Amino acid sequence: MKLKVKSSGWSAGRPIAIVNDKTATRLTANVNDRVLIKYKSKKITAVIDISSKITDENEIVLSSEILFYLGLKGKEFVDVDIAKKPRAVQIINKKLGCKTLSEPEINQIIKSVVDNSLTEIEIAFFISAIYKCGMKSEEIVALTRSMFETGKKLKFPGKIVVDKHSIGGIAGNRTTPIVVSICASAGLTFPKTSSRAITSAAGTADVIEAVCKVNFSPEEIKKIIHKTNACMVWGGALGFAPADDKIIRVESMINIDPEPNLLASILAKKLSVGSKYVLIDIPYGKFAKVNKQEGQNLKEKFEALGKKFGLKLKAVLTDGSQPIGNGIGPILEIKDIISVLENKPDCPKDLKNKSIFLAGQIFELCNKAKKNQGEKLALKILESGQAFNKFSQIIEAQEGSLKNLGFAKCQYDILSNKSGKIDFIDNKKINLLARVAGSPLDKKAGVYLYKHLKNKISKGEKIMTIYSQSKAKLDDAVHFYNENKVISVE
Amino acid sequence: MKLKVKSSGWSAGRPIAIVNDKTATRLTANVNDRVLIKYKSKKITAVIDISSKITDENEIVLSSEILFYLGLKGKEFVDVDIAKKPRAVQIINKKLGCKTLSEPEINQIIKSVVDNSLTEIEIAFFISAIYKCGMKSEEIVALTRSMFETGKKLKFPGKIVVDKHSIGGIAGNRTTPIVVSICASAGLTFPKTSSRAITSAAGTADVIEAVCKVNFSPEEIKKIIHKTNACMVWGGALGFAPADDKIIRVESMINIDPEPNLLASILAKKLSVGSKYVLIDIPYGKFAKVNKQEGQNLKEKFEALGKKFGLKLKAVLTDGSQPIGNGIGPILEIKDIISVLENKPDCPKDLKNKSIFLAGQIFELCNKAKKNQGEKLALKILESGQAFNKFSQIIEAQEGSLKNLGFAKCQYDILSNKSGKIDFIDNKKINLLARVAGSPLDKKAGVYLYKHLKNKISKGEKIMTIYSQSKAKLDDAVHFYNENKVISVE
Repeated sequence: MKLKVKSSGWSAGRPIAIVNDKTATRLTANVNDRVLIKYKSKKITAVIDISSKITDENEIVLSSEILFYLGLKGKEFVDVDIAKKPRAVQIINKKLGCKTLSEPEINQIIKSVVDNSLTEIEIAFFISAIYKCGMKSEEIVALTRSMFETGKKLKFPGKIVVDKHSIGGIAGNRTTPIVVSICASAGLTFPKTSSRAITSAAGTADVIEAVCKVNFSPEEIKKIIHKTNACMVWGGALGFAPADDKIIRVESMINIDPEPNLLASILAKKLSVGSKYVLIDIPYGKFAKVNKQEGQNLKEKFEALGKKFGLKLKAVLTDGSQPIGNGIGPILEIKDIISVLENKPDCPKDLKNKSIFLAGQIFELCNKAKKNQGEKLALKILESGQAFNKFSQIIEAQEGSLKNLGFAKCQYDILSNKSGKIDFIDNKKINLLARVAGSPLDKKAGVYLYKHLKNKISKGEKIMTIYSQSKAKLDDAVHFYNENKVISVE
Repeated sequence: MKLKVKSSGWSAGRPIAIVNDKTATRLTANVNDRVLIKYKSKKITAVIDISSKITDENEIVLSSEILFYLGLKGKEFVDVDIAKKPRAVQIINKKLGCKTLSEPEINQIIKSVVDNSLTEIEIAFFISAIYKCGMKSEEIVALTRSMFETGKKLKFPGKIVVDKHSIGGIAGNRTTPIVVSICASAGLTFPKTSSRAITSAAGTADVIEAVCKVNFSPEEIKKIIHKTNACMVWGGALGFAPADDKIIRVESMINIDPEPNLLASILAKKLSVGSKYVLIDIPYGKFAKVNKQEGQNLKEKFEALGKKFGLKLKAVLTDGSQPIGNGIGPILEIKDIISVLENKPDCPKDLKNKSIFLAGQIFELCNKAKKNQGEKLALKILESGQAFNKFSQIIEAQEGSLKNLGFAKCQYDILSNKSGKIDFIDNKKINLLARVAGSPLDKKAGVYLYKHLKNKISKGEKIMTIYSQSKAKLDDAVHFYNENKVISVE
């Protein structure tokens, strides 16, 4: 059926087409059915909405995703037909029955995710199927390859391209900007793409965004790296492993991340930016995502998967028993990072030590340093001030500045109600607390910790300060603190 | 934030609100985030879309579901605020970890499904969690009760209210109109609500719709039943167990239906219409949904669940080894039904016998007949012509007619390529074949079978005729037949 495109500037986040009820009947389409829209040599599958008022009988309103993909401006005629359920739906159904999928079957699903022929509901069932049944290692390899191959790729011929990733779950723990700055100072190429927070107080992209842009095109990224050896950008909309971005968006609705997806997602993103030497940080502990045994298993899976793709990949288990650094929340974390990079005597030692350790591991992984000499080199670069200069250079290349890093308008000090030692700090609840205060959208919101595990504290002494730009959110956060066991003094 | 409602006649099938990008930033809302919209004393949760063109900064475009629910016409001011994830999301996450849910937790989920504070993606995860982990019998009771209690209810005081349900999976098998007509002739009240097809060629609602309306309000249904003792309507949009309707809609995207949902869905619908005596038909066999053992287990679960709600419920295992009746597709099935009701000598005996059996079971269940006397009574009513009169009366009360039941324009005979006996008929593939031909939207599309299991057939004799109003779909169906083992002659 030929229909005339009506432009509406409507960004639905996914391909949606609106037709009026008569047109829907002629198409035999109900709300939520799929249609195939063709224009010239391109085609896209969209989900149907029905409106009797905003469209005439021969019109179709297309969300901006479709206009962009088909190169439409409005008033063109497109071919619209009811589309069958894609074969991928059957394959997802098969996986829900815990059958092993072949490589072509996995390719079919990922292709259908990328070309939008699967709805987010169907993607949710795919994620659930993996969560339910797991995946064999061949399936994970196929998933990784498929995610990687359906996306854009960066290449840095002749360069030593390194990368790092933390599986997350620890409040603060913003080692990335420090590690990137140290490694880039040593001449390594570090095309770091990061995510935004899903459940944590802030993702690296949220933190870096407090001081510069993080949203660049792949071409712009190449320029930034050409200038500074590194970048620190948001990886979510670059077109690297685009299937992964869509899957993460659905996963974030319910806060699950099955292990095969975690493995494939991370590896695919690293492969996309051309990394050859990859360090994976796996924090473990009571309040971390994994315990020691689970961390060990994950390490082995990461290293085996890396090998399949010819990467030099090492996974390290690190202490995940408590937050790392003092600040939790974008600006508060930036302040910690700067104090480490500026070698301030009162900088958070845990953040400094862990960053030095990780940078040292990367140096050894790519033979920039001999065995056991990595940390020494990293510390030298940090203490020389080179790393701070590199960090400033990257922020500048990303059109930002390190000026005006003030504190939030509203603050509240939490005092200890008894004397003793810090017995536990619940990572998850600290993250939630910072979120309730407004992090990551409120860049100045968050928590500043004065104490870490086993530190002594006196009655009436400050445990933490909560920051927020909104008085109402600060009140909510204080209420949250009082209702939850965030920190315990024994 | 106060925003002015812009009416658009836009029916999205779910509550969606569109704001422009500046307003979204002020709300700190991204695409797919939830907002709470308040007007006077009512409130509804909606999912955000962003459009820079169709809305101004102080406006909000609301889908018709929201306008209807809040009683808005446009130009009113509503209060809009970013909404937190409902607590139900956490509970779904808990179920994904295979934990047992309490009654209040299940109530919370169902309430959130009904008031639209869960997105379809989150509902998909809930379905997957049940599919993955199953549910204990107390959880199924709570699920059923919650689905039932959050919906509208019909009551027929002083009446003997009976009902039947088949778990489906068998092509044809349209016993319901015959059973309803026989039972209503005997003075029983039979408020039959049926579903539309999800994967089969046609649901009872699709079939009945070929000759009359099936979409009525609860008040209209009461009038039809008052007139005829029965109705045969579509149960999907009546507001009986509305959570179930939404869950089924999501299940249908991927064709799964976990057993706890199946049990709760059926029972909740029966409770909603005030049924006291309920017969469940469980066809079993190689090409059915369940084998004999699974059928037996399901029978026990149905009967135990019925008891919890004070129903007199019996489940019967029936032969599900092949299609029942000759026609598969709305009009072709209506023709079968009429030939049984009219006592035509060449009517499909399998359909007649099964209908008599089921009606007889209902008579015995509600003590309308003594033990082993039910079928006799049913046959008497059928052969007297009363059942046909009752059927005609119901169709008339539902504003329909039995005239003009012609065949489809395009037909194709499938001939046997050898002599022998019918070895198997694949229910699923027969259903798919009818769907490829255009059923259920094309009311005349479908398949007419000349042979059943173990029947003799000669080379060149007709096995079936495929019908369609569209030449292209008929060709597709013939192609499907040739590519798939639908029927085998040995």
